[in-house]
Amino acid sequence: MINFSLMKKLLFLLFLSPIAVWAQQDDAVMIKKISDEILRNGKAYDLLYELTKKVGGRLAGSPQMYKAEAWGEKALKEMGADRVYLQECQVPRWVRGAKEEAQVININGKAVSRKLDVLALGNSLGNGKPVTAKVIAFNSFEEMDKRKEEVKGKIVYFNHSFDPTNIKPFVSYGQTGVSRRAGPAAAAKYGAVGVMIRSLTESTANDPHTGSTSYNDSFPKIPAIAMGPRDADYIWELSKKSDVMVTMRTSAKFLPDTIGHNVIGELKGSKYPDEIITIGGHLDSWDVNEGAHDDGAGVVHTIEVMRALKAIGYRPQRTIRFVLFANEENGMRGGNKYAEVAKEKGEKHIFALESDAGGFTPRGFGFTASKDKHDKAQQWLPLLKPYGTEDMAGSGGGADIGPLNRLFGTPIAGFIPDPQRYFDLHHARTDVFENVNKRELLLGAVNMAALVYLVDKYGL
Amino acid sequence: MINFSLMKKLLFLLFLSPIAVWAQQDDAVMIKKISDEILRNGKAYDLLYELTKKVGGRLAGSPQMYKAEAWGEKALKEMGADRVYLQECQVPRWVRGAKEEAQVININGKAVSRKLDVLALGNSLGNGKPVTAKVIAFNSFEEMDKRKEEVKGKIVYFNHSFDPTNIKPFVSYGQTGVSRRAGPAAAAKYGAVGVMIRSLTESTANDPHTGSTSYNDSFPKIPAIAMGPRDADYIWELSKKSDVMVTMRTSAKFLPDTIGHNVIGELKGSKYPDEIITIGGHLDSWDVNEGAHDDGAGVVHTIEVMRALKAIGYRPQRTIRFVLFANEENGMRGGNKYAEVAKEKGEKHIFALESDAGGFTPRGFGFTASKDKHDKAQQWLPLLKPYGTEDMAGSGGGADIGPLNRLFGTPIAGFIPDPQRYFDLHHARTDVFENVNKRELLLGAVNMAALVYLVDKYGL
Repeated sequence: MINFSLMKKLLFLLFLSPIAVWAQQDDAVMIKKISDEILRNGKAYDLLYELTKKVGGRLAGSPQMYKAEAWGEKALKEMGADRVYLQECQVPRWVRGAKEEAQVININGKAVSRKLDVLALGNSLGNGKPVTAKVIAFNSFEEMDKRKEEVKGKIVYFNHSFDPTNIKPFVSYGQTGVSRRAGPAAAAKYGAVGVMIRSLTESTANDPHTGSTSYNDSFPKIPAIAMGPRDADYIWELSKKSDVMVTMRTSAKFLPDTIGHNVIGELKGSKYPDEIITIGGHLDSWDVNEGAHDDGAGVVHTIEVMRALKAIGYRPQRTIRFVLFANEENGMRGGNKYAEVAKEKGEKHIFALESDAGGFTPRGFGFTASKDKHDKAQQWLPLLKPYGTEDMAGSGGGADIGPLNRLFGTPIAGFIPDPQRYFDLHHARTDVFENVNKRELLLGAVNMAALVYLVDKYGL
Repeated sequence: MINFSLMKKLLFLLFLSPIAVWAQQDDAVMIKKISDEILRNGKAYDLLYELTKKVGGRLAGSPQMYKAEAWGEKALKEMGADRVYLQECQVPRWVRGAKEEAQVININGKAVSRKLDVLALGNSLGNGKPVTAKVIAFNSFEEMDKRKEEVKGKIVYFNHSFDPTNIKPFVSYGQTGVSRRAGPAAAAKYGAVGVMIRSLTESTANDPHTGSTSYNDSFPKIPAIAMGPRDADYIWELSKKSDVMVTMRTSAKFLPDTIGHNVIGELKGSKYPDEIITIGGHLDSWDVNEGAHDDGAGVVHTIEVMRALKAIGYRPQRTIRFVLFANEENGMRGGNKYAEVAKEKGEKHIFALESDAGGFTPRGFGFTASKDKHDKAQQWLPLLKPYGTEDMAGSGGGADIGPLNRLFGTPIAGFIPDPQRYFDLHHARTDVFENVNKRELLLGAVNMAALVYLVDKYGL
């Protein structure tokens, strides 16, 4: 047991008073001004409506991608960017083709007909004519390795499941996502003719969740689908005690790469115009939904931060770039291009912030930065706390800004909204406008704008 | 600018090491065990499905109230309470009657017919035949006081709106809620014949939100309705520049008081059986929805905490009561009765915890307690933090446990989930099961169970 009141006094001297010095009154006033502007006049929700309902799903290379680019360019101009430009980059053009299908056709030698709700994995290739084979089910790659002789000619089902006791769903996603990212390649190595995976979600609804996979060029590129969680339960239980035969058909293919664009708005720095702060989200989404949380939210957060800074008449000291990245989901081409061009031009990138974890209520920011820069950012916590940011201690960043960190060592941060609902709709048909809450969305922009303001004022 | 690394070292000595002592390893292990049990085997979501879909809306005194009581009794028994009993209390029986109606029938002398989406306020009385009158609109009671001579014979519209710049919606609710709670009484004093209010919400949907009002017995009990936000905007804008005539009809009335029950499950204390810890939510809800967040979530949180403690074989030192309160929404009779009986029996209530702010992702607890007890509870923060509790510094409690605090000085706490979505559906038709997320709901129970465990172990 400790003497709590003594501790509090000492803490006050050590901790609170330096904060009181650091969290200068003018910063608190400015952040309140930004927050009031966003919560009163914010356009993020209306913009998200346009992007989701008028553009819709916008996979890289698709006609909707061009529509989204034009929409983003217009929005950034209308919201007051000093200049708006498009940065060309090659993007893959994967098309899903005819609706994928899978069904159980035989159990222990008896003909049945039970359809499964499935989606082809992104970047997977269609098999043209149906593949029909026995199912062999595994909980892990290790299990498959042990029984590799049995795999040949079969359809492999990977049952990797989120650990429900894990409080952090993104950690669960990291752990189980290997089935989607590498499962088809791993199974093809042992002669599998198709792969089915449990969707990467804890949702109790049966919607399948797509997402990218990568083949290994040394082995056949076999068809691969994700299955809704209830169908996954069914297949897993069934395959433990019965011989199960499934037929699956997918029609996905790659068309030749095409031209896409990072859409960039800029507010020019008044004092250090060569020091660049980047804030962004990715404009592309999967084709089966509206990409509302992933990453419509990040896109409209980005535009809203710019709008609000302009609206209150803030003139940044450093140049702030508001970037709608071209291609995160199935290629990472947008973020890579942005960093490459930055390198060619010898630009000085002092900080980048990405929103790509949804438009939920804000909880914090994660950083990939040197210790001194991370420590500096963490001292701003008391200024952000009234707006929902509770934690800036962890790691984070974003797929599109990762290349800046790798190329230049630029400190990067990721906006962290509450993660508990994200994987219910991530890459599923349910990632639509109706599942985004206006207040939660706007509050994300408030916290992001406040962080950008502080980095602009104090550097990092 | 401060020397951050020195400060961190000092903080470590002062702050982290006492925490390390306090947050004993066995507590962390026990809380992880509780959390794993709830997240793996939790029944809260299934129970909520039953309560919302099989019982439904359950206003005090209604047939559904009895159904809910029987359901609660059965659930507490099945989940392993040492004993379950019903505590009788008189409850009001307010019935809405025929569907309420309101429409604009005349603008500047021209006949029109525009229906408004409205709900009668809880505890308001119907006018039988329609009331038709001119509308006079006010932003505040002060405005009405200044123009009180104009009120007679009119329908008063109160436009009290949430301040969108307020980060804390419950504060907005406190500020604007006066229009609902006291508007009809205040307007009747000046001779108004009816009252309409803007629903207490920031939602952009047009659903009206009901909730209780209180008349003043010295003045006529005039009909009172809440209007959907879009209709409220319409009336407000229209009434600023035009003469508007509205007709409204409500049919609500009180039937005689009837008998309801607090449904109580108990785990008997092994060491201090006379020291009672209460945890609860209220079983009643409004009649127009399923009472999913308000307060189905609190009810199933309560049952889940008991289930989990039993399931892991935890034997409490103190007696823990799991209370489903009979009547919060329009009478507070359940909580008052519980405290009265406690007083009659000379019970020793050392702590009470309520969940009545929804089943959203957990953010903390608020306390109404003496400083030393609040300080003691706050020291547990590091143990709860991994599960989402970030703040235990503020005030809080609950309507049903407030009487314990007032009668005995019992320290009380309220569970604080993220508040941003709550008033979108609070008292509206949209407060249904589908708007509750399973993970968020279970995590609330995890944090509540952990707090109850700590109070049971260390007292407060």
